[in-house]
Amino acid sequence: MAQILSGKEVAIAVRERTAALATELTVKGYQPRLGIIRVGERTDDLYYQSSLQKTCLSVGLDCQVFAFPLEISQEDLQKEVAKVAADPTIHGILLFCPLPKTLNEKAIREFIPQDKDVDCLTNSSLAAIFTDAPEGFPPCTAGAVMETLHYYDIPLKGRHAVVIGRSLVVGKPLAMLLLREHATVTICHSRSVDLPSICRQADILIAAVGRAKMVDASYTHSGQVLIDVGINDDPDRPGKICGDVDFDSASAVAGWITPVPGGIGSVTSSLLCWHTTLACKTAISRNQE
Amino acid sequence: MAQILSGKEVAIAVRERTAALATELTVKGYQPRLGIIRVGERTDDLYYQSSLQKTCLSVGLDCQVFAFPLEISQEDLQKEVAKVAADPTIHGILLFCPLPKTLNEKAIREFIPQDKDVDCLTNSSLAAIFTDAPEGFPPCTAGAVMETLHYYDIPLKGRHAVVIGRSLVVGKPLAMLLLREHATVTICHSRSVDLPSICRQADILIAAVGRAKMVDASYTHSGQVLIDVGINDDPDRPGKICGDVDFDSASAVAGWITPVPGGIGSVTSSLLCWHTTLACKTAISRNQE
Repeated sequence: MAQILSGKEVAIAVRERTAALATELTVKGYQPRLGIIRVGERTDDLYYQSSLQKTCLSVGLDCQVFAFPLEISQEDLQKEVAKVAADPTIHGILLFCPLPKTLNEKAIREFIPQDKDVDCLTNSSLAAIFTDAPEGFPPCTAGAVMETLHYYDIPLKGRHAVVIGRSLVVGKPLAMLLLREHATVTICHSRSVDLPSICRQADILIAAVGRAKMVDASYTHSGQVLIDVGINDDPDRPGKICGDVDFDSASAVAGWITPVPGGIGSVTSSLLCWHTTLACKTAISRNQE
Repeated sequence: MAQILSGKEVAIAVRERTAALATELTVKGYQPRLGIIRVGERTDDLYYQSSLQKTCLSVGLDCQVFAFPLEISQEDLQKEVAKVAADPTIHGILLFCPLPKTLNEKAIREFIPQDKDVDCLTNSSLAAIFTDAPEGFPPCTAGAVMETLHYYDIPLKGRHAVVIGRSLVVGKPLAMLLLREHATVTICHSRSVDLPSICRQADILIAAVGRAKMVDASYTHSGQVLIDVGINDDPDRPGKICGDVDFDSASAVAGWITPVPGGIGSVTSSLLCWHTTLACKTAISRNQE
């Protein structure tokens, strides 16, 4: 039976260091502040927003929402993002994506300055991940996986990490972060042949494929750390969520496993607050130069 | 005994299509033109320059060298690169790297506009490779590997490609190009544990590690395509070059193999001319819009 790697525990550790730094900065007169840019009223955006507002509050961050109607024009939204970008009291910017199809999302993302790009939405942040440049922040979900591996002291150097999924939110940036720590990294995806046998070779397996309960016992072994990044509607329990991992099946075999809920997803919003607080600290030191 | 995948043959095919397109553009009054920016007089830069000049000539491209002394200041070099960048008769720019340590190479690279960045030196080109954006060109060495795989109709979809090396010139961008064509991709490196056994699993193995003759028969199998990107001084034959693959050992086992010399290296400069010609074509269509 696998040992549980609790995302909740990791999140508490991230929030503790965030709150400590936020207090230190606030005492100096600079309260870290996250700006959320939202277009329209999608249910999952509103849900994420409310969850982020709570997390911000719990660690002493201010959070301001900039909400715009679905009908906003490209030009107007660009102007509004540029305004938020120029506001020195806002240290981190999160743009809820995807934007409505009427808008050119890629162009709008680029109005976020890299030093406020706390969720890796811009080309320069993505290039920094790819090139191992010191600037910028990783996408929070990929960062949450690394945070969890570090929290539980899971060795990476020389070990074989297999990532299922090649998205820009998890798969590809996570592969780069794992390489940075000298893991051997395999990226697989829906077209990979004999996925279970590739995955069974992993010391660390990360499922980020977006298919409910796909990864079962046949993907894992007793020495494996199995990280589940998926958040899907549970096909067997309406109204509940589940991961990409079939927990009941895989946890009987794997060595260590993250649950869903209570796994990586719990770490993500805390990490966004940490990035925002770091961005605030950097902005202050730059102003004092 | 492995079948030889001849880089020379691939290079001929690339040069043929480059010459055809270059003629078409020249007839219309636009001769494709490569600008080479060189600082100092390093032997390998001068060697590469002379080889590129010959290749350009052979396919109907013009090639102009902008050479600067080692002592040039950051500001002056930036101005000079900006001047070349603004010259509408120059369609592709190659900056010989590494620059002397007195210069901030990263900053200078960014003065190359993406549409003239024919060897993927800028952040925006690297981000495009990472994010699968349609703009920009891959680094010529990584592109030469793909060109060779395509020329010999080697299937990639669902197959397992293993890349040894994680540089920004070959390893990482090549991994992205292979993923784009739906291969399963493993990136290994000097810290990987039991490299031969990981490599033996590859349908396609790409050695880009920069260590003479490291990859021997123990890394390969009879169904494997073995691509050698290395260019090293041959430790056994002074004055000669060799690859990262121990050709005598590995070619007795592998299914297909690229030699050194006469392999990937032969394709690289031809591909640079192809990129420049494509950049010229794009510039013309943009001007006519």
